[in-house]
Amino acid sequence: MDIPITRIKGGVGAARGFLTSAVGCGIKNPDVDRLDLGLIYSEVPCHSAGTFTTNRVKAAPVRVTQTHLRKDGLRAIIANSGNANACTGVQGIRDAKAMCRGVAKPLGLKQSDVGVCSTGVIGLPMPMMRIEGRYDDLVDRLARKQGQGFASAIITSDTHTKELAVSFDLDGVRVRLGGCVKGAGMISPSMATMLCFITTDANIPEETLQKAVLECVEESFNRITIDGDMSTNDTVLVMANGASGMSAMRRNGKRCRTFRKVLLWFMRELAKAVVRDGERVTKFVTVNVEGAKTYLDAKKVAEAVCKSALVKASWNGGDPNWGRIIHAVGYSRARIREELIDIHIGGKPACLGGLQADTPMNQLRTLVAKPEFEIDINLNQGKANYTMYSSDLSPEYIDFNRSEYAYWKQARKDGLV
Amino acid sequence: MDIPITRIKGGVGAARGFLTSAVGCGIKNPDVDRLDLGLIYSEVPCHSAGTFTTNRVKAAPVRVTQTHLRKDGLRAIIANSGNANACTGVQGIRDAKAMCRGVAKPLGLKQSDVGVCSTGVIGLPMPMMRIEGRYDDLVDRLARKQGQGFASAIITSDTHTKELAVSFDLDGVRVRLGGCVKGAGMISPSMATMLCFITTDANIPEETLQKAVLECVEESFNRITIDGDMSTNDTVLVMANGASGMSAMRRNGKRCRTFRKVLLWFMRELAKAVVRDGERVTKFVTVNVEGAKTYLDAKKVAEAVCKSALVKASWNGGDPNWGRIIHAVGYSRARIREELIDIHIGGKPACLGGLQADTPMNQLRTLVAKPEFEIDINLNQGKANYTMYSSDLSPEYIDFNRSEYAYWKQARKDGLV
Repeated sequence: MDIPITRIKGGVGAARGFLTSAVGCGIKNPDVDRLDLGLIYSEVPCHSAGTFTTNRVKAAPVRVTQTHLRKDGLRAIIANSGNANACTGVQGIRDAKAMCRGVAKPLGLKQSDVGVCSTGVIGLPMPMMRIEGRYDDLVDRLARKQGQGFASAIITSDTHTKELAVSFDLDGVRVRLGGCVKGAGMISPSMATMLCFITTDANIPEETLQKAVLECVEESFNRITIDGDMSTNDTVLVMANGASGMSAMRRNGKRCRTFRKVLLWFMRELAKAVVRDGERVTKFVTVNVEGAKTYLDAKKVAEAVCKSALVKASWNGGDPNWGRIIHAVGYSRARIREELIDIHIGGKPACLGGLQADTPMNQLRTLVAKPEFEIDINLNQGKANYTMYSSDLSPEYIDFNRSEYAYWKQARKDGLV
Repeated sequence: MDIPITRIKGGVGAARGFLTSAVGCGIKNPDVDRLDLGLIYSEVPCHSAGTFTTNRVKAAPVRVTQTHLRKDGLRAIIANSGNANACTGVQGIRDAKAMCRGVAKPLGLKQSDVGVCSTGVIGLPMPMMRIEGRYDDLVDRLARKQGQGFASAIITSDTHTKELAVSFDLDGVRVRLGGCVKGAGMISPSMATMLCFITTDANIPEETLQKAVLECVEESFNRITIDGDMSTNDTVLVMANGASGMSAMRRNGKRCRTFRKVLLWFMRELAKAVVRDGERVTKFVTVNVEGAKTYLDAKKVAEAVCKSALVKASWNGGDPNWGRIIHAVGYSRARIREELIDIHIGGKPACLGGLQADTPMNQLRTLVAKPEFEIDINLNQGKANYTMYSSDLSPEYIDFNRSEYAYWKQARKDGLV
């Protein structure tokens, strides 16, 4: 990126005028004291924007937050981990609204000023008895923190929190962008089992912000896949409160274009962090498809390659297996001609014109043994391209995801099922 | 099926007038003596039909066999395992044709009377020096055998041969249908393309046979998935030589309908055998989608569920996880309404109206612990339905598919790369 940015401390709490807090309620596990309920609040009125899962099975908090966002926008967000509040019917909607109301009251806001996000197990009722008594606590603890507590409160199978904060110059005014993301499984294009929260003290009109968010998500979070499964809860929310003191950006003006560039870079960094922390992931693989007839052809090829269980197994094994890559290209339904396809692995030709290239196999094996490498697939048929960020699939991933019975047992103990 | 059939001994050699043979050439592994080249031959002229992979990267033998089939039909088929002859360019086409010519000559046939099928590793040249000297041998050994040798010669990562033979009555004449199939993944690197060969001594017009094959494959082999990867070599070939002595069937006549019913049942049995023998598979799962608005909606739902890594991991773990099933239904792009969806596992309700049903969890766990069970997904929106046969995905599958470096090393030793 050609815009100078400075990495600053913290995450979603790093932008001016935003307060965050977190408490542990025992939603994740009543026996272990871990943060699992968090709050973000803008001290001053702000603009907000968001995108949500395209899964037709939508979790209750997704439905509620979509409605609240459309109404007057959000000024606060409550989020929990440990339970997704998905497939929970009318009760789920009631619970999601109760969570908004719970913090809206002590904050002096309307219920519809608050967004709600949940992540965790699907199909079990929210253990509201653990949450209900904690709203005041959550609001009392609000402070100008960096947001680490909030970032911890939203993670599930993630091995660590994923935060980022930067500052940059917008026509003489210093502006901050802070964010955090969670997600490690159920990650697929069209948004992942993934929650992302971004705050900024930039002053940007609401519809301009919404447009920028949609465009940037398309080129960041929609370009990652770990296991090809798309979640019921995926949400990206951005709040902009103008607390940097800058004057309002003009739509399509120079400051707006700069902001959009930084936002895209910012989202891409968070998206890549999700892949790197994918469940039992050992490789981070960038797949660049070039020379496609159309954008859609390039996208189909990238998605087929990045989702193929066999390709991902070979990456896990450190095998520079271009045969499996080209077979996925072949079934992608993109318009391709086998004899035109070039595949480079780690910058070295593995397949040229659909045939094995003469790069020594040991050299390719060394490149694929690295924790991060790139695959370039040139279809040599046109000018369209598409990049995706993917990972290997490990035996440990399957092992890790064999059973969620423990969650059900806890819900049983709680009298919820 | 309402047609009485009798299981008879043997496989692809069980129908009258068909001879089979097999030899070991060392294509699979030069150091181990295993059958890896086989031949099927009809003593009398016959009709033939086939379907092939829709992968746009097609192996050389697929291209050659398609051409030969269109020309005059096939009277013999040569097949090998150990090398797929895929992504091998002009040389691959030459090699595939040479294999047809190699057996055509001693059989007194034209090159185009012979079909060729290969399965194994992709992207490495065929080790023709191992095959060239064996054509006469293959033809000399042709005999009225049951076909076990041929069935052995085409398997790769399969744990056993998969054969079936039946006889049934067509208006007073006893007709035989014999077949074998190989495949342990839709494609697997360690060699597992799906190849299916069926012979019959029924007397059926060529275009009627072709139509029946297309229809029956759609409802059998196109309904299975192990890893979601589609091969470059998938082939189903059927030869009918009329040696039962029956008069030619009339198109759309009663005998034709009976034959089609038996053929569908036959292909389904072979297709299910492929799933049961899938690479490191521990569960055989039938997924029935009902109540969809359209056939395509039902198909989308079945495919999404059967291909989801998370659903398959839960089956591996014996976890009756309906939450993951409904989340896959949601992202299938089928038209669904969450609150109408019922999911039964092993005949017991797990989810009703999109919510957890009250079947005791331990009861569901017992059902999913079985090696075979059914999942019924009722969308309650229409009358269309679709059934697929699937398997779990195991840590061992990934482990098994991590690398095919050994094949490359052998090709290197052979001076092929």
